[in-house]
Amino acid sequence: MSAPAAPVQAAPPRPVRFGILGCADIARKVSRALLMLPPGAATVAAVGSRSEDKAHRFIAETGLPAARPHGSYESLLGDPDVEAVYLPLPTSLHVPWATAAAARGKHLLLEKPTALCAADLDAILAACDASGVQFMDTTMWIHNPRTAKMREIVADKDAFGDVRVIHSMCGFRASEYFLQNDIRVKPDLDALGVLGDVGWYSIRSILWAVEYELPETVIAHRHPVKNQAGVILACGATLYWADGKTATFNCSFLTNLAFDVNVYGTHGTLHVTDLVIPHEEKYGEFSVASKSNFVKPTIGWDPLPSKHVVTTDLPQEALMVQEFSRLVQNIRDAGGRPEGKWPAITRKTQVVLDAVKASIDKGSEPVEVAS
Amino acid sequence: MSAPAAPVQAAPPRPVRFGILGCADIARKVSRALLMLPPGAATVAAVGSRSEDKAHRFIAETGLPAARPHGSYESLLGDPDVEAVYLPLPTSLHVPWATAAAARGKHLLLEKPTALCAADLDAILAACDASGVQFMDTTMWIHNPRTAKMREIVADKDAFGDVRVIHSMCGFRASEYFLQNDIRVKPDLDALGVLGDVGWYSIRSILWAVEYELPETVIAHRHPVKNQAGVILACGATLYWADGKTATFNCSFLTNLAFDVNVYGTHGTLHVTDLVIPHEEKYGEFSVASKSNFVKPTIGWDPLPSKHVVTTDLPQEALMVQEFSRLVQNIRDAGGRPEGKWPAITRKTQVVLDAVKASIDKGSEPVEVAS
Repeated sequence: MSAPAAPVQAAPPRPVRFGILGCADIARKVSRALLMLPPGAATVAAVGSRSEDKAHRFIAETGLPAARPHGSYESLLGDPDVEAVYLPLPTSLHVPWATAAAARGKHLLLEKPTALCAADLDAILAACDASGVQFMDTTMWIHNPRTAKMREIVADKDAFGDVRVIHSMCGFRASEYFLQNDIRVKPDLDALGVLGDVGWYSIRSILWAVEYELPETVIAHRHPVKNQAGVILACGATLYWADGKTATFNCSFLTNLAFDVNVYGTHGTLHVTDLVIPHEEKYGEFSVASKSNFVKPTIGWDPLPSKHVVTTDLPQEALMVQEFSRLVQNIRDAGGRPEGKWPAITRKTQVVLDAVKASIDKGSEPVEVAS
Repeated sequence: MSAPAAPVQAAPPRPVRFGILGCADIARKVSRALLMLPPGAATVAAVGSRSEDKAHRFIAETGLPAARPHGSYESLLGDPDVEAVYLPLPTSLHVPWATAAAARGKHLLLEKPTALCAADLDAILAACDASGVQFMDTTMWIHNPRTAKMREIVADKDAFGDVRVIHSMCGFRASEYFLQNDIRVKPDLDALGVLGDVGWYSIRSILWAVEYELPETVIAHRHPVKNQAGVILACGATLYWADGKTATFNCSFLTNLAFDVNVYGTHGTLHVTDLVIPHEEKYGEFSVASKSNFVKPTIGWDPLPSKHVVTTDLPQEALMVQEFSRLVQNIRDAGGRPEGKWPAITRKTQVVLDAVKASIDKGSEPVEVAS
């Protein structure tokens, strides 16, 4: 008998080397997530800012000593060590820098809202396609295991039935400072305002609930609140599907923090109140009711709704970076192709957002959703 | 020293003697509530049905042996023992029987929807006014102590701020039998369908949340679901106030049980998921958040929303009958006047319901809310 063969050890994957293009606040959260990943997933190779000083400071403050500072975005994109770019710049800068990153063969993790309109997004996606790089937007909650569990429940035709009605409200009470100074209230930086910032999540959550079937028509609620520069601070809309499903959503910079999604099916209901940012980082609740009856004579419910809890070792933003890195490694190390699911759901979100914006601009006229 | 005076004993109040006009299912719930009240509040003196047999059976089955059966509504109204009428007939019969009851000097506890339109309700309210009798509709949850507690919270300008957005969904999954046979799907009986049945609650809850300030304009969602006879089975609407507040609601006979109200204020949020029929009879929960901030870097909430629990010894429908009886006793025994708050909030509910119905009938055109 020969000695047993030594177990085959897969070579540990080489981590994906990220470049962070822009030192926005949200980049601190993503940097923190990158540091949480198990070895072999991702590292931050470089940080690019309009000033090298700022890049230096960001690197020091976020604890990324291995990262090289770049004093311009162009310089970061020219860094051969950078394989993937996380791009948290203001939305109006997405087209030039996202297409430039893709053209340099960098995989692209792009902050939401991904573009000012679907045509702009298409330019970005075309650049990614042409270079064969992975595209993903930063809708973090999609990667939370709670979301997968909720998906399973909503998809259960017996227990949940068909989704008929959805409501989502996403918003937070912005400070006076925010309302005067944040890029999200500036027409030249994030012209979509609250619709792009948190309306994005409402729209995505609605599409998520219907397995990304596009609505046929969108009608914005009347009288959206705008600032003096015309940027939307609060708005809402109703979405209509061909089969009679409807959804409404509201988004606001002017009301207390809320990330609600309620999904009403023929047999079941789902309630979640902290979809986008869970109340606690590694713990997520939601509530489900199925085939609820009245206790006769209508004095109670039977069965009662049930509370579900899903915990996660890694927060959702770390899971997002991990999944993105896995896809990049699959392309880089195993000859795989970019995963088309991610740009597809980004585009659907942007297309619906476009329709809502168009309806707002037309004084709440109905707008057909382009496909 | 003289002996201490015997304590003055108030004469126990004479109970209000109810006549139940119609043996609908909901009358069983109200009869049960009447039996729960402490002595001196209310008794059931008579039950009227189109057949004396049916009235007999109802009396036997609901345990009201002191009640006299009447084989016609007219006969019940002629019963001098009856001081107050609880009227759960189909909506299309409300005007003739409610005005007849009032004309006979009977106080009126009227099932919702109170009328097919505000003009019909006005005829009923005018008859009550002319006779000086108390009017109240049967929106039971208004009488739940949970509702008072929630009112206190929403009214707190510091902790909750100004209400800006409201969403309500009320509905239940009706059986095939219901969808073929229930009076609520019959155009000659309850022509308002789901809008009158549970849409009533959504509209009332929205008005409740804004302290009964009427919206300016209502726009029904497109494509309400109707049955072959044209009765609404599912619909929704958006409500607009002059100051920019908005509310949306949905109501449905076609989705799983839901009685949701979400109120979004500038500083606070309120969530309740069983407003109309609490999950458990004597126990009510709701959730409140106030001045919620993000835990930096947007990885959680601080403070967390808090769960509130309000218990009640008597279920809400018993509290409703108790309050109605107290008002009747105040008129009968103390020379008081009818409490005008109740017909006023009924009328506001009906006026908004009218506007939603008109918008549905006009293919979702905007409809101004009459005052």
